[in-house]
Amino acid sequence: MKRLAILGSTGSIGCQTLEVVRAFPRDLQVVGLGAGNNLDLLARQIQEFRPHLVSCASAPARGLVPIPSECRWASAEEMATHPDVDLVVMATVGRAGLAPTLAAIAAHKPIALANKEVLVMAGEVISQEAQRQSAPLLPIDSEASAIWQCLRGEGQEVRRIMLTASGGAFRGRSPQELERVTPQEALQHPTWKMGKKVTVDSATLMNKAFEVMEIHWLFGVPWERIQVVIHPQSIIHSLVEFADGSVKAQLSPPDMHLPIQHALFYPERRTNLSLPRFDPLASSPLTFEPLVPERYPCFTLALEAAKRGGAWPAVLAAADEVAVDLFLTGRMGFLDIYRLVAKVLERHKPVENPSLDDLLAADAWARETAFAGVR
Amino acid sequence: MKRLAILGSTGSIGCQTLEVVRAFPRDLQVVGLGAGNNLDLLARQIQEFRPHLVSCASAPARGLVPIPSECRWASAEEMATHPDVDLVVMATVGRAGLAPTLAAIAAHKPIALANKEVLVMAGEVISQEAQRQSAPLLPIDSEASAIWQCLRGEGQEVRRIMLTASGGAFRGRSPQELERVTPQEALQHPTWKMGKKVTVDSATLMNKAFEVMEIHWLFGVPWERIQVVIHPQSIIHSLVEFADGSVKAQLSPPDMHLPIQHALFYPERRTNLSLPRFDPLASSPLTFEPLVPERYPCFTLALEAAKRGGAWPAVLAAADEVAVDLFLTGRMGFLDIYRLVAKVLERHKPVENPSLDDLLAADAWARETAFAGVR
Repeated sequence: MKRLAILGSTGSIGCQTLEVVRAFPRDLQVVGLGAGNNLDLLARQIQEFRPHLVSCASAPARGLVPIPSECRWASAEEMATHPDVDLVVMATVGRAGLAPTLAAIAAHKPIALANKEVLVMAGEVISQEAQRQSAPLLPIDSEASAIWQCLRGEGQEVRRIMLTASGGAFRGRSPQELERVTPQEALQHPTWKMGKKVTVDSATLMNKAFEVMEIHWLFGVPWERIQVVIHPQSIIHSLVEFADGSVKAQLSPPDMHLPIQHALFYPERRTNLSLPRFDPLASSPLTFEPLVPERYPCFTLALEAAKRGGAWPAVLAAADEVAVDLFLTGRMGFLDIYRLVAKVLERHKPVENPSLDDLLAADAWARETAFAGVR
Repeated sequence: MKRLAILGSTGSIGCQTLEVVRAFPRDLQVVGLGAGNNLDLLARQIQEFRPHLVSCASAPARGLVPIPSECRWASAEEMATHPDVDLVVMATVGRAGLAPTLAAIAAHKPIALANKEVLVMAGEVISQEAQRQSAPLLPIDSEASAIWQCLRGEGQEVRRIMLTASGGAFRGRSPQELERVTPQEALQHPTWKMGKKVTVDSATLMNKAFEVMEIHWLFGVPWERIQVVIHPQSIIHSLVEFADGSVKAQLSPPDMHLPIQHALFYPERRTNLSLPRFDPLASSPLTFEPLVPERYPCFTLALEAAKRGGAWPAVLAAADEVAVDLFLTGRMGFLDIYRLVAKVLERHKPVENPSLDDLLAADAWARETAFAGVR
């Protein structure tokens, strides 16, 4: 029986993680649930899974969620480090995952990591600490999971990662059209059902730049060996080229349950007949297209910030979080996401070898500056 | 320094193996060369690689090939078992590989196996013996190599193998057209440069049935879990589905040097910049089509023989070897390959638990019967 603490349990990945738990009642047990603001859903999840620990981002809201007597409130950090927890599922979004991830690492807990912004903000610190504390980081992201699966049993030098990207909701649209697209349109991802933030980040390809960073830090692959290629079908979740030129790919229908389950049971693979199955005939043709950087200015901007290092990626992630929120709430247009993030990055004053506090300060500064930028 | 004995050195795989050796002069050394009838080429190879041992199928021909003083003639079996040999490359075609393969296994030698008919004829004996004698069988066949690479580090139950097939030279041709095709046309494989026998076997899909058997015996995958799918581009060399539904695939441009090199250096992967490199954009689209059994009667016939077991597959392989030769030398038509092999199989008297001698007898009987069938 593997005991899980799920942070971000009411989000898209959190809910799908709980569906995997339902499929394996004898193997997986939920001992902790942590949510943001969706208190109704959290209450229902508590009733169903009867965790020992519950956390909630908004402390005053606690009074609104009834909990059974065997259950108590805790902080996200306490949950991520509790002795009863065998695996921490970080299904939060944005900055929220940073402190509990670091706490879990310090407690030597394996972490199933969906919250890629944690690695964007503080990839160097997180990956070094995870190694130092022997706390494995098990990616849930489908592309990172694909690469992880392709690397299994290899222990070989990687010549090239081909990270696939669907191209998002607006692949092929002209800049003129993009100026006028609505949040509703941006949330129609062509292949994946995901949370709102990541769906918009997929439309700008900001998300793909975040994945480049995730892969760089998780697998220690140099920037110049990570290539992004558009693959509109989202069946091939990424490809790895080894020293001899052999390429391995991982394929499956676009469904997050598989990479979630893979991280929960690693190194085992469990039969789960409720997952959709790959059908080569139905999946044909599988196509690739070049990534045209001019179409996705956020991608280029983000990668530049990543390569600069320091607190640049933290500023990037924070500004993007604000910008996507402003777009989703109708306060600015789609192309303004790029403009706002670029403006915040321009004003950032570089920090050499930032500490965690420096990163959090840069994050706070970037949020403030982003909000000020639209006001 | 890994010391190789290459049996079948003048054939397509043999020559390509020597090209890999040329690329790694400090890591690979040829200590034995064995050929069939191409004495001119054998003589040139001996001059270049200076092996200690040389073998030749036609003993009287030995006088025609000059060998240096440090070199001596040997039998294929002696070469396959010699203490100086670290790895035996079985690049022979048809029945010729059987005895030396068994000899190499008995001497606990790792075998890089291209000669799949060995596993077709005697898969059960060979795979059992290889396990018992701890003599690893390292497949060179591109599809088997792909599956082997996908299985690396998994140690998991395989739910399904998707073995890809180009469809051969005559994909899409009508039976009427097939009646009249020439050997020259059959030898024009759409994607692979290979030896004559295997190129014709690819056109009938007999080769794909042989690969199903190869995979069944090499990896212990039940017949019903091996599915063949047409993939005309020959870029995805096969796919493996695991218990959780995750699929892994191996991809590379169609070029035998890569799987040869993989078998020679396993478990290492060595940089070889002379190998063609996978380009996702140039490879797009990758397509799959169903295998229509009516179009490839040899495939169905062969799989039935495989599942019956006993000496049926040995009869199949022998009759096919004769039939392909008769077609290539213009003595019968392309569709006669199926007719002749079916006729020979019809006349076979089943043997329960055949010994190796039984298999060799069945092989000899099948050859005789096939020849008699056209006379």
